[in-house]
This record gives sequence, C-alpha cells and structure tokens, in this order.
Amino acid sequence: MGRSPSAVVESGPDPELALGKIRFMKSLKDTHCKIRRVDPAWLRLAAARQLELTKPPGSLGRLEETANRCAAIFGSLSFRLDKARIVLFAGDHGVCAEGVSPYPQAVTAQMVLNFLRGGAAINCFARTCGIDLMVVNMGVAEALPKVPELIDRPVGMGTKNFCLGPAMTIPEVTEALETGIEMAGRAVDDGCQLLGFGEMGIGNTTSASALTAAMTGLSAEMVVGRGAGADDDCVKRKVSAIERALSLHQAQLAQPMEMLACLGGFEIAAMCGFCLGAAALRRPVVTDGFIATTAAAAAVRIEPGVKDYLFAAHASVEPGHAPLLALIVQRPLLELGMRLGEGTGAALAMKIIQSAAAAFEDMATFSAAGVSDALQPVVPA
Amino acid sequence: MGRSPSAVVESGPDPELALGKIRFMKSLKDTHCKIRRVDPAWLRLAAARQLELTKPPGSLGRLEETANRCAAIFGSLSFRLDKARIVLFAGDHGVCAEGVSPYPQAVTAQMVLNFLRGGAAINCFARTCGIDLMVVNMGVAEALPKVPELIDRPVGMGTKNFCLGPAMTIPEVTEALETGIEMAGRAVDDGCQLLGFGEMGIGNTTSASALTAAMTGLSAEMVVGRGAGADDDCVKRKVSAIERALSLHQAQLAQPMEMLACLGGFEIAAMCGFCLGAAALRRPVVTDGFIATTAAAAAVRIEPGVKDYLFAAHASVEPGHAPLLALIVQRPLLELGMRLGEGTGAALAMKIIQSAAAAFEDMATFSAAGVSDALQPVVPA
Repeated sequence: MGRSPSAVVESGPDPELALGKIRFMKSLKDTHCKIRRVDPAWLRLAAARQLELTKPPGSLGRLEETANRCAAIFGSLSFRLDKARIVLFAGDHGVCAEGVSPYPQAVTAQMVLNFLRGGAAINCFARTCGIDLMVVNMGVAEALPKVPELIDRPVGMGTKNFCLGPAMTIPEVTEALETGIEMAGRAVDDGCQLLGFGEMGIGNTTSASALTAAMTGLSAEMVVGRGAGADDDCVKRKVSAIERALSLHQAQLAQPMEMLACLGGFEIAAMCGFCLGAAALRRPVVTDGFIATTAAAAAVRIEPGVKDYLFAAHASVEPGHAPLLALIVQRPLLELGMRLGEGTGAALAMKIIQSAAAAFEDMATFSAAGVSDALQPVVPA
Repeated sequence: MGRSPSAVVESGPDPELALGKIRFMKSLKDTHCKIRRVDPAWLRLAAARQLELTKPPGSLGRLEETANRCAAIFGSLSFRLDKARIVLFAGDHGVCAEGVSPYPQAVTAQMVLNFLRGGAAINCFARTCGIDLMVVNMGVAEALPKVPELIDRPVGMGTKNFCLGPAMTIPEVTEALETGIEMAGRAVDDGCQLLGFGEMGIGNTTSASALTAAMTGLSAEMVVGRGAGADDDCVKRKVSAIERALSLHQAQLAQPMEMLACLGGFEIAAMCGFCLGAAALRRPVVTDGFIATTAAAAAVRIEPGVKDYLFAAHASVEPGHAPLLALIVQRPLLELGMRLGEGTGAALAMKIIQSAAAAFEDMATFSAAGVSDALQPVVPA
C-alpha cells in the first residue's frame, strides 16, 4: 500500500495512484479479454445428462437449470462446488451527510468489528452453511484494527458526498475495482469453486438507488425504498439527494466507470470488480440483495458477458431490485422478504446452488443404479 | 416384529395386530395428550429479542418469523437446531394397477436401493446440507435387503387398489402411524432438534391427490397433476381412479383414520404419525412437497395443534399443493419448481431454518457489540 487512506482522499490522483491506474487498466484489459460468453452447447449437454439421473425429468426444477449453467460456466460436465466463499466489502458514504440513513455512519465500522468477532447475521449464516467468509475494508470512515481477519484495502476514509461532486475519482474507482478483481482471484487461488459477495456501508442504499436510476432510467422515487429502516422523512431526503445527484452528474452517467465514480461507493466498485474477476476466471458468482445487484449490473454494463456467470440469490424488498434483476436477466432463487445485505441472501442461495451441483455430479444414473427409466406411461393390462 | 410382511396383507387383523392397535391407541392417546398449541407469549418475547440483534428491525424477513416460531415450539429463547434429520418413508400403492404412473411399481424398490447406496438426489442434498438421512421401508412391494442402513417396518407388500376397496385396514393404518411416531421419537432420542420427512412410492401422487380431494372438497380434476411425469392419458386415468375411489369410500372420509385407510398409503400414514410425534415432542417438523403435505394435513385433521409445529418447505408444482398448504395455514419457504419428493425440498428449507435459528441464537446484541441502535432517523445538522 504505502499510502495512508486519508492521503488518497486529500491529495487526489498522485503519481502512485496513476501507477495504480495503469496497473489496473492492464488488469481490467486482461480481465476483459478473459471474459467470454458461456458456450450454450454445454447447456444442452448438461440438460441431456440431467435426463440420465435417477429422478423424473425436470423434477428438480430450477436446481436443474442452475446446475446446467454451472456446467456451462466450467465448460465441463464434471465440476464441484464444495468450497464456497463470500467476500464482504465494507465502505462508507459521504452522502450520509444528507441524512439518508436512520443509522449513524459510525455503524459501518461497528459492524465491521462485529463481523470480525463473528457476531453478525452473515457470520451465523456462513457457519451454518459451511461457507468461508472474508471481510475487506474498502474505505470505512473510521480507523479499524490491523488484524489478520480483516483484509485492509481502504481507498479512502469514505467517499465524498455525491450531491456536491463525484463520490470518487476515476483512480479511486479503478483501485476499488482492482481490489475486487484481486479478491476473486484470491478466492480461486484458495480453491473456491463458488463465489458470493455482500456489503456493509451505512448510506449505501442511497448510492445503489442512484446507480439503479442511472442504469434503468427510472426516477429516484421509483427506485428508493426504506433501506435499513428509513421513515417517510428519511425517504424524502434520499429521493431528494438522488435527484440532485442525477442532475449534477447527468453528463457523466453514460460510461460505467464515470457513473461509478459519480454515484458509487468503494465497496460497490469492489463488488463490481469481483464480478468481473469471477467471470474472467470462469466461476459462478452469487449476488446478494439490492446493493450487491447494483454492482453486478454495473459489471454487466462494463462487460455484458458477465451475466452468464451471475446467479441472483434473493428478491430484496427494495423497490429498485426487480428492475435491476431484469437488467442482468436473472430470476432470484429465493424470496424471503430479506433486506439486510452482508451476503446473507447469497449464503442461503449458495447452499441451494451447491445442492444442485452435488445432485448433478453425484447422483446415480438410471443405468448404473438399475432403476427403470420409463418415459412411456405404464398402461394397465 | 415376528410377522412377515406378507402375513399382514394376507391374514388381515390378527391377535398380534389387534395388540398392536391397542399399543398404538395408547401411543396415539399419549401423543394426542402431549400435543399443545404453542404459547403465543413466546412469539412476542422472540420478536422482542429480534430487535436487540445487530441488524435493522425485520431485515431478515421470513427468517425472523421462522426463528420466532421455533422459540415458541421449544418454549425458550435459547434453542439450537444444529442437528437435523430427514426420515424418508417408502411404500407401494395398489392403485398402480390403474396405470396412474409413468413408472413401473418396481421403481419404488429400485429407488430404495439407490437411497441406501447414496445415489439419489436426497442423498446428495443431505450430504451437502449436513443433514442426517434415515430410510424406512413402510411396505415396498418387493423384497429389500436386510441391511443396517434400512429401517425395515413393512406393514405389507404395498397397499391394496383403493378403486376396489380400502387401501389399508384400520390396524394397518394404526401400525404405520405408530411407526411414524416411533421414528420421531427416535430422532429426538438421537439428539435431533429439527425434523424433516419425505417419501418414495410409485403411484403415491394418486393417493395424495385422492386425500387432498377428500380433505379440501375439491374435485379430482382440480387436484391432479402430472406427478413424476404423467402424460395426458395417464392424467385421465389418475382422475378416473380418484373419482371412483371418492365415490366408493364416500361414507368413510369424514374421520381421518378411516380416510387414511381408504385412500392413503403406508408411507403417507407413517409421515402423518411422524408429524404427530414431532408435535408431541415439541420439535419443529418440515414437510416436503405435495405428498408429504397431504400427510401433514391429515395429522392436522387428527390434532389441529400439530400446525404450530409444521414448516412448509417448498411450493410444489402439483396443483393440489396450494389448497393443502392453505389447510395447514403454511406458506412455503421456497418456490423452485421442484416436484421430486424424497425430502429434497425439506433438506433445502431445513438449511434456511437452521440459519434463521443460528442468527437468533448466536448474533450479537446492539449493546454487547457496541453497535449504535438508532431507531430514530439521523437528521442532517
């Protein structure tokens, strides 16, 4: 690293950051080059294999299409998803100054400490589901302890208030994306076959709503929800902040990098990079709720091929989530009225995806099990 | 045991069976006496505890109501669901003679062997989800190996064709219910805190559809689906068989035991007993798909208090499933287009229920974690 996080915020692009940018642009170029659409031939081969497994055709419903798509992602009928990891990216948001969250910004750092002590919902879910959890500080506004459990990659001490100017500089977005790509690579290096991600950041539903409005063309009012529990006045402040930001940054929203810089967050850009990295490395990658899906949609905007690698975990109650899912052409596996983030929805969905893959890989075939494969009705004599 | 399965079918009620009935009636009476509605005070206490956990109020959606109901079931805010078991009951159906299934009856025994070798979908799901699986032969029509992995409790070598007479005698229903109660007791003795169940039996969607029509008052046509993959002609034969059976047994359908005897199956009666046993022992019990839910609904008809202990795993694509779920006042956790049975839906849902319980039990509170519990919006200065 060599730079203190605050130096990044205060001094803006410096030679070291510029170097970082060049490194990243190479990395993004590499990543871009590596992302390919999956070959639909694998979907057909996988569907044919499903018919050989000891179950009525189609009886595992969406788990069959899930496993088939994993086969296409791996480019193989023989793959495993036993080792799974969720990477949880945390960052703070300058837009909190607009009163857009019912929680003080300090909660982001407090929750990171909670993750490190194992006391948050995602810790409980990850333990129950047997999924690795890695926590990355992308730029929390308060000092965090230097402990091995925390991957410390702060791009700054929180983004700037996007009602007044861009939330991030392009070099900052670049660095955050690069960190996301790096985390996907590290997960794959560690043997993870299934990747998921989540986020923590007070105020980040406002950032995600602004990005959703920018990507879908919907109005601020149509995409803003109650987030972590905003009351009517708080919702009004969210809508107002987003409307002002969309107006201020209007000319910069067509290009995804500029859009992320103007309206995004460190953790959102990192999740976007994580999706790009996962797709480049041909791994299925599971989004979480609304904010995570915003990042996935931004990744699809950077490189449309990413959508072949994405699985949507659950339908959030946030009103902006459904139009985003349409944008990335994903139907969520779960609908449980959740709106927590942290990767909690991803954890539950990953267990279903692992089950789908285990059935695909480990079930006996009709011939091997000596089970009658009667596709013709048995008519009484 | 002492009796061969075929002896039961051929000789009908004998002194030993009559004794079995007396034993069961005691057991059913005991079971009945033990089943109590949960105390709603626990739901309120659990909901209050949810507010102390480090997450926005209500943000875990249906997982919160799930955990709260578990607290009410255990009558405690301190419970664990770490150890879970699915009991898979298998049995054959005489109504197969009417050509109601696209698979030959031999597939039931073949699939039991597949379960014992670990090659079926439920084996893969149970391994992936870390859930015990126990397979019980309730009356498969073919001889099965005597192996320790198979709990052998055959009531007969398949039921009789219910188009011609009752599928079972009352002593047979009694014995099957008793076995189900015993399996719930054994699971609890083995330390299981969360129970689930599933079934295998060629032709059993026809039996389940007949029971559903009897319990809901819907016509055969409205509750019959394609089961394991019936074509149009096969569906017509299913509807016809059910219509004839409903007409033949009309006078016996008001009482649940008689209804089960006329239209049920060994494995369906056992699953019904399993629900009764789980409720009596105050354990959450997770239904699977359509056929399992029929058994759960029969248990609720025997003792309405059972419904407080039931969790519906998933929405099956079978048309009779939704009206049954309404009958037991359950909204399924999952909707994945599955229609396999075996407990596959239960396995996936049990992981979600375990996650809900783990969050409830293990999450830090706002005060313990030093996280700001701001229920008031933070208004900008």
